[in-house]
Amino acid sequence: MKHFTEEEKIKILSDIIAIKSINENEIEVANYLKKLFDQYGIESKIIPVTDTRVNLVAEIGTGSPVIGVSGHMDVVSPGDESEWTSDPFTLTERDGKLYGRGTNDMKAGLVNLALVMIELKENKELKNGTVRFIATTGEEVGGAGSQKLYEEGYMDDVDYLWVAEPSHDALVYCHKGSLNLRITSIGEAAHSSMPEQGYNAINPLMKYLLEMDDKLNGDNRKNEVLDKLIINTTIINAGNQVNSIPEKAVAEINVRTIPEFDNEEVIDLFNKTADKYNEEGSDIDVEVTMSLPSVFTTGSSKMINLAKELGKKYLDLEPSVIGSPGVTDASNLLRGKDDNFPFMAFGPGETKMAHKTDEYVYKDYYFAFFDIYKELILGLSK
Amino acid sequence: MKHFTEEEKIKILSDIIAIKSINENEIEVANYLKKLFDQYGIESKIIPVTDTRVNLVAEIGTGSPVIGVSGHMDVVSPGDESEWTSDPFTLTERDGKLYGRGTNDMKAGLVNLALVMIELKENKELKNGTVRFIATTGEEVGGAGSQKLYEEGYMDDVDYLWVAEPSHDALVYCHKGSLNLRITSIGEAAHSSMPEQGYNAINPLMKYLLEMDDKLNGDNRKNEVLDKLIINTTIINAGNQVNSIPEKAVAEINVRTIPEFDNEEVIDLFNKTADKYNEEGSDIDVEVTMSLPSVFTTGSSKMINLAKELGKKYLDLEPSVIGSPGVTDASNLLRGKDDNFPFMAFGPGETKMAHKTDEYVYKDYYFAFFDIYKELILGLSK
Repeated sequence: MKHFTEEEKIKILSDIIAIKSINENEIEVANYLKKLFDQYGIESKIIPVTDTRVNLVAEIGTGSPVIGVSGHMDVVSPGDESEWTSDPFTLTERDGKLYGRGTNDMKAGLVNLALVMIELKENKELKNGTVRFIATTGEEVGGAGSQKLYEEGYMDDVDYLWVAEPSHDALVYCHKGSLNLRITSIGEAAHSSMPEQGYNAINPLMKYLLEMDDKLNGDNRKNEVLDKLIINTTIINAGNQVNSIPEKAVAEINVRTIPEFDNEEVIDLFNKTADKYNEEGSDIDVEVTMSLPSVFTTGSSKMINLAKELGKKYLDLEPSVIGSPGVTDASNLLRGKDDNFPFMAFGPGETKMAHKTDEYVYKDYYFAFFDIYKELILGLSK
Repeated sequence: MKHFTEEEKIKILSDIIAIKSINENEIEVANYLKKLFDQYGIESKIIPVTDTRVNLVAEIGTGSPVIGVSGHMDVVSPGDESEWTSDPFTLTERDGKLYGRGTNDMKAGLVNLALVMIELKENKELKNGTVRFIATTGEEVGGAGSQKLYEEGYMDDVDYLWVAEPSHDALVYCHKGSLNLRITSIGEAAHSSMPEQGYNAINPLMKYLLEMDDKLNGDNRKNEVLDKLIINTTIINAGNQVNSIPEKAVAEINVRTIPEFDNEEVIDLFNKTADKYNEEGSDIDVEVTMSLPSVFTTGSSKMINLAKELGKKYLDLEPSVIGSPGVTDASNLLRGKDDNFPFMAFGPGETKMAHKTDEYVYKDYYFAFFDIYKELILGLSK
């Protein structure tokens, strides 16, 4: 019988928090987990995404149902480390909270999934079906890891999926998509006293951006759960001398899409509007730098129902069932699945704590989710 | 009798080109010229502008008329030096041209003025009146040097002014003003999935800039010589993460003003429009970073007439008499003078060559302007 003690659980989380997997180095997390799985005879596979970045997939059991459980191994930058009360990469307990970059988003969830796999296997608790543990790379910067897993068929036979993203008080069953575009406007340099000898790249770009903003934010289509699409110009840069007409202006845009107004339609609208400007003498180019579709499921599933019950039982609260504006790896992992696919994001931590200085997860919730995940798997695999 | 040989003229220009007075180090040029003046008993005075930057004023003769002759000691950056055929700070002759940063704009003109002063003094050629040599600092970046000289009264008693800026084929008797503004829009950061928790600083700035562009470029007022005012947004920067709503957006604007639509009116319009935006919830701030007024004179003067004749005589061409879009130190030096003040920019070199890689001045024109300047002074001081 294997029964992880609280000390062991803290030790393993602490080891993984110490790995600075800031948009890179996920391979160290993968190697750590692979070694842990190896100790208990669980087969796992490192799946390269780039030369240096990898996913990890591990599996126990056989046959159906296939329960997919997923978490990402990367964390965001701690920002100014001097603003942290304790070192962001040293798991530190204060007042019942476990502090550290990634405690909340989402190494506590990820470690729980791994440890549950081990106990289920070691104690032969899983009588039926398969559990596929899916640890991804680069979730915070475009989801290259989950894209790779989708492409390689790791989701083809999956019957249930949850990602252990931080949301202990809510079951997220659908979320917006996220689309990043880079818009480049090319002009011609000239001295600002003789602008007619050049072409100012900034003005057509500003007009274009405001027109796209009007078109998209002004669109009335609405998703019943996710509400409206949202667009924001988040970066703009042009020029370096106040006396020179700028020859290049570049903006970056983030669009949060909904099923009713999806990534493809938005991209098409950007391209068509650029064409219009270009016919009038501008030189505007549209580049898609990231495109993650929205995830929409009905939220009616055995999995959601069971998760709600377990939330009540172990967390002493009634998790709400909601849509979210933020993306997860499900944008990639659920490509091609229909609305009835049982999906949720549910894990120790809080959405609002993600990416913050002094990020923490409640220790009790970290432990509670171990039990929730284990019962959830046993309930679904019956 | 002192008569500078061509070799001496080249040597002195070469020494001054070798001084890298790129928006700084004008003091080395001033010290060089002061030492030269000292050798010939001409009194000169270093006039500090900042801790490290200075003007130089030298004078010969007494009483009226007071003829002001002026040039700036700074040059613009050579840019990528590897693109120059020869070292930009080593005066190099090829095919009758003298290459080097500042040969054209405007050390050839400046050196001529200094050498003419010396011959006039040494040979007692100046029978009447005063010649005031005015060498300035920082002309290329806002005219702090000329502003200082105006404030300290060095222009109060001046009857004629020419600046030896490069324009061998044209007498520039009026030019536009130049106004630089920095516009800062403050918002509030938020994650791009929840923009309602913040305020995007970019959008109001873009709207404001386009509105100002419409207002100013759309204004029909026209100067008979200088044509219309021109505005350009030349720099814009905001945001650094595609997933973050930017909390700050900054733009820089250059406006080329005319007497009919002057700097004060433009500044007022920028401020009033910002007030309107701010009443509607934006936070837009307007900062004036440089304000050089336009220079408008009638162009009818003994000086212009004489300069035209001398152009024909020494350059074998008929200089046109024109207005120019580019500013000179006259924006500051002529503050408070009326339209009848005799002013011109006239010197060896070409406007279009200014600030270019492989900048050069024709050697023959460099020498010719020595004679032009000398005869001009003698003609005006009669």
